[in-house]
Amino acid sequence: MANFKGHALPGSFFVLFGLWWSLKTPLRQCCLQRHSTERKKVPPFFKKLDLIEGSLKVFFAFAGIMAEQFVPDGPHARLMNSDGWVKLMNWQHSTMYLFYGISGIADILCATSPFAPQGLDSMALSLALFVEGFLFKYHLHNRPMLDTHVHSLLLVAVFGGAASTALEVFLRNNTVLEVLRCSLAILQGTWFYQIGFVLFPLSGPEWNQEDHGNMMFITMCFCWHYAVALLITGVNYAVVCRVVRCCVTKPASNIEMGFRKNTMDSSSQKALLQQSDEE
Amino acid sequence: MANFKGHALPGSFFVLFGLWWSLKTPLRQCCLQRHSTERKKVPPFFKKLDLIEGSLKVFFAFAGIMAEQFVPDGPHARLMNSDGWVKLMNWQHSTMYLFYGISGIADILCATSPFAPQGLDSMALSLALFVEGFLFKYHLHNRPMLDTHVHSLLLVAVFGGAASTALEVFLRNNTVLEVLRCSLAILQGTWFYQIGFVLFPLSGPEWNQEDHGNMMFITMCFCWHYAVALLITGVNYAVVCRVVRCCVTKPASNIEMGFRKNTMDSSSQKALLQQSDEE
Amino acid sequence: MANFKGHALPGSFFVLFGLWWSLKTPLRQCCLQRHSTERKKVPPFFKKLDLIEGSLKVFFAFAGIMAEQFVPDGPHARLMNSDGWVKLMNWQHSTMYLFYGISGIADILCATSPFAPQGLDSMALSLALFVEGFLFKYHLHNRPMLDTHVHSLLLVAVFGGAASTALEVFLRNNTVLEVLRCSLAILQGTWFYQIGFVLFPLSGPEWNQEDHGNMMFITMCFCWHYAVALLITGVNYAVVCRVVRCCVTKPASNIEMGFRKNTMDSSSQKALLQQSDEE
Amino acid sequence: MANFKGHALPGSFFVLFGLWWSLKTPLRQCCLQRHSTERKKVPPFFKKLDLIEGSLKVFFAFAGIMAEQFVPDGPHARLMNSDGWVKLMNWQHSTMYLFYGISGIADILCATSPFAPQGLDSMALSLALFVEGFLFKYHLHNRPMLDTHVHSLLLVAVFGGAASTALEVFLRNNTVLEVLRCSLAILQGTWFYQIGFVLFPLSGPEWNQEDHGNMMFITMCFCWHYAVALLITGVNYAVVCRVVRCCVTKPASNIEMGFRKNTMDSSSQKALLQQSDEE
Repeated sequence: MANFKGHALPGSFFVLFGLWWSLKTPLRQCCLQRHSTERKKVPPFFKKLDLIEGSLKVFFAFAGIMAEQFVPDGPHARLMNSDGWVKLMNWQHSTMYLFYGISGIADILCATSPFAPQGLDSMALSLALFVEGFLFKYHLHNRPMLDTHVHSLLLVAVFGGAASTALEVFLRNNTVLEVLRCSLAILQGTWFYQIGFVLFPLSGPEWNQEDHGNMMFITMCFCWHYAVALLITGVNYAVVCRVVRCCVTKPASNIEMGFRKNTMDSSSQKALLQQSDEE
Repeated sequence: MANFKGHALPGSFFVLFGLWWSLKTPLRQCCLQRHSTERKKVPPFFKKLDLIEGSLKVFFAFAGIMAEQFVPDGPHARLMNSDGWVKLMNWQHSTMYLFYGISGIADILCATSPFAPQGLDSMALSLALFVEGFLFKYHLHNRPMLDTHVHSLLLVAVFGGAASTALEVFLRNNTVLEVLRCSLAILQGTWFYQIGFVLFPLSGPEWNQEDHGNMMFITMCFCWHYAVALLITGVNYAVVCRVVRCCVTKPASNIEMGFRKNTMDSSSQKALLQQSDEE
Repeated sequence: MANFKGHALPGSFFVLFGLWWSLKTPLRQCCLQRHSTERKKVPPFFKKLDLIEGSLKVFFAFAGIMAEQFVPDGPHARLMNSDGWVKLMNWQHSTMYLFYGISGIADILCATSPFAPQGLDSMALSLALFVEGFLFKYHLHNRPMLDTHVHSLLLVAVFGGAASTALEVFLRNNTVLEVLRCSLAILQGTWFYQIGFVLFPLSGPEWNQEDHGNMMFITMCFCWHYAVALLITGVNYAVVCRVVRCCVTKPASNIEMGFRKNTMDSSSQKALLQQSDEE
Repeated sequence: MANFKGHALPGSFFVLFGLWWSLKTPLRQCCLQRHSTERKKVPPFFKKLDLIEGSLKVFFAFAGIMAEQFVPDGPHARLMNSDGWVKLMNWQHSTMYLFYGISGIADILCATSPFAPQGLDSMALSLALFVEGFLFKYHLHNRPMLDTHVHSLLLVAVFGGAASTALEVFLRNNTVLEVLRCSLAILQGTWFYQIGFVLFPLSGPEWNQEDHGNMMFITMCFCWHYAVALLITGVNYAVVCRVVRCCVTKPASNIEMGFRKNTMDSSSQKALLQQSDEE
């Protein structure tokens, strides 16, 4: 879908998931906080959230595959015809969606099955991001300079997200890693929009693909996107923490229940070390 | 052995080992589970399995070296003659087998010797994969584009396996890492077959080595192989877990013995932290 | 600011911060030592130091952005005019300062807010270094050989610092990592000066940009800078430790309070494992 | 020192250090074993060994610097003359020795000073290896193909050693990492000899620098060197373990003192986690 909409659609999904995670992360940390003196337990409520999140991922992935295959100029599930390969670009996008679908299935398994090993959801998400980056990487051959460059910058966000999510397999409930994942997801989403604006300007002249000034600006612009993504994540984090604090003020009459930093900090690490149960 | 059989043979070995590991991993996790309240102990039965696995590796490696050396057009253990180097390709393959043989010896040592440091088997396997990838990397010089590309994709599976196995040196009994190793071994095996099909088609016309569409398809095809490898690993995992659960239902009358996720999760991490004995 | 002063200014800041950290690190370790038998607690005094450090960073970053924007030949906050982009170099420098400002805000949050997750300050500093390196990397296109080389060497210091600071997110209070960060900050600072000397010699002839001998000398010179940075860090470490030992001799009458290595060593790791509170 | 001797000399040092470490590692592990039920304590004897090792490093580094500077065709401590840089190759080698000297000083500090943070010796050794690889990397410009290739392979051993030693900063007393360091040091040493044989053949014709067969053979030969290095390390390990076992049979009448694998395994990890004192 080589047009503005084709970039805005995945961009919107990533922004939505990034925003959603930036709300879920502090909520979950706060709940883990409340049980800091007892055994860490994430309330069953979060299981349900994970289940819904996983189901949504599977649904979006399925819808994405169908859309890529059966849009009017799509391959309609044919891989070859007498002229050779049919619409490989659409097939590649379908493959990307497939791995996000697998990530959704892993989320569902982790939320429901007693057999699923811990960290499976993070590994599946990391694989989905890795596959996305991997396919994009071999996608960039023989394109104009600016086009290659904006997609390379996308890869920084994609592989950064894959790496930070892979770390989450081993370091569960580490708030900093979760914040990193949120901000990189938002960055990826807004950057998809930026790519759409650069390659298919809604108005005004086309961008000069070979101008060095454009390259320098785009590199810098990527950093600004990330600064904004960090700002959004930070504001969401602060707001959720404050709201939860207000709501749970009454039961928090005993002093251990507060959101003091020391208990907060230790929780993420104790989770790593003593491997608190997450159900 | 530059023909279809020369790729099918190593492919079959990797698929077999991948399938075997994808059965052993959940079996072992389930056994570790049963002892979750006491000291973690892998039953002696697994020692014997490791011993057999190591011996098979040594045997296959020895057979492979002999085959590479003494096939009719092989070097017959001569490294140089008056014309220069003799059949370096066969010598390189022999070297790869040699390191898998060393990995087999490390498995045997870990299963039998009280001196062997823990993690030696993982390190030796990681080294064998690394050496395989290392030799393949310098193997690819001056080949046609598609040929280079299918082998580069193989390197992704090989080095991915080497990295995940190297992590297992430090994170013992981590189910996610073991699943990753299984799936990457199956991927490597099926990809050897794919290389054989691409370079030496059994029927039909040869692949165009310089066509960009072929490159794009092959990259995507690699992802499909991995999706299938993940599916196989996942199904095997689920089947073994269910079978073990059925068989041990009776002794599991006390509630601690079940396969509840929390005990499951913690086991792999406790293994890391408190370093349970594995005998 | 493509002149000697434009390199001396950031160089001075990095040297100052490196020196300051090389004094704070041993002081903090010594204080953590004193409480080795009780719960690890960094005295509130260090919170105030962190607060001042963060505020200084924010102030310097703000001053830097203003200077880059409103120097006589700066862009004066205009990004585009009819000729295209305006002074992108200044805008890039402003972006770098922006991320150091974000790092300062993170320091302030970690020192004051009970909500801030532990390791946020290290992650923000690591991001600021990463962004600096990232922008420099795309900065180097089409420059003469020696110019590119001295900036590539700068990137080694920058990305090395980013990596070691990223590790500090997970391994808190690890003295070796902190020493590494100090020495890499000093290295970066002195290397900025060196770049200034090479590209804008104060006296004497200009450097031959294409001479291979110059390249070899500069590579070696970078190592000498690092040796000096290590020496400075080491001397500061030893002096602070000795001074603190002298000052606290009296209360250290009981033997647990000494600076013996065993307690010293264990403190940094216990901090990782039992996640001592840092307030 | 571009001749055979100039490669044999550093090669001999690395082989010697590799062999020495391959004896010290199992000895130390065995001693840590003996105290498995009590607090882990490395006997003071090992402190003395470390002190001697560090002093030898400092001495060799000093001797190496002097030799590089004051050999008849050396730079005699002059860096520039009217023609430009003087003997930069010798200056680069001196710089490498300087960092090994720093590593020796760090060993001495760790063995004697109560202030030295744990892991400083490993970090300094890792830095020395990194600097060596770093200088070699920029050393290779514009050389013939085979010459570049044999030095690139050296870099694999050097950077591999730097990475595994850097891991030892965080994972103390991990036997597998120590074995890896030993084997990579021996590999580096024997490979220096191999480079000498390839570039300055003692007898027979010169190697064809552009022959692809030579490249393939050399790559494979590097793997054989490593197989031999692993064999030597393994044999030394086994012999030392058996000898120690024989010598301490009498006091090992109580069953906890044996070299059973479980206690062996746990020791290296407990060291990581509970950070046993090493004095």
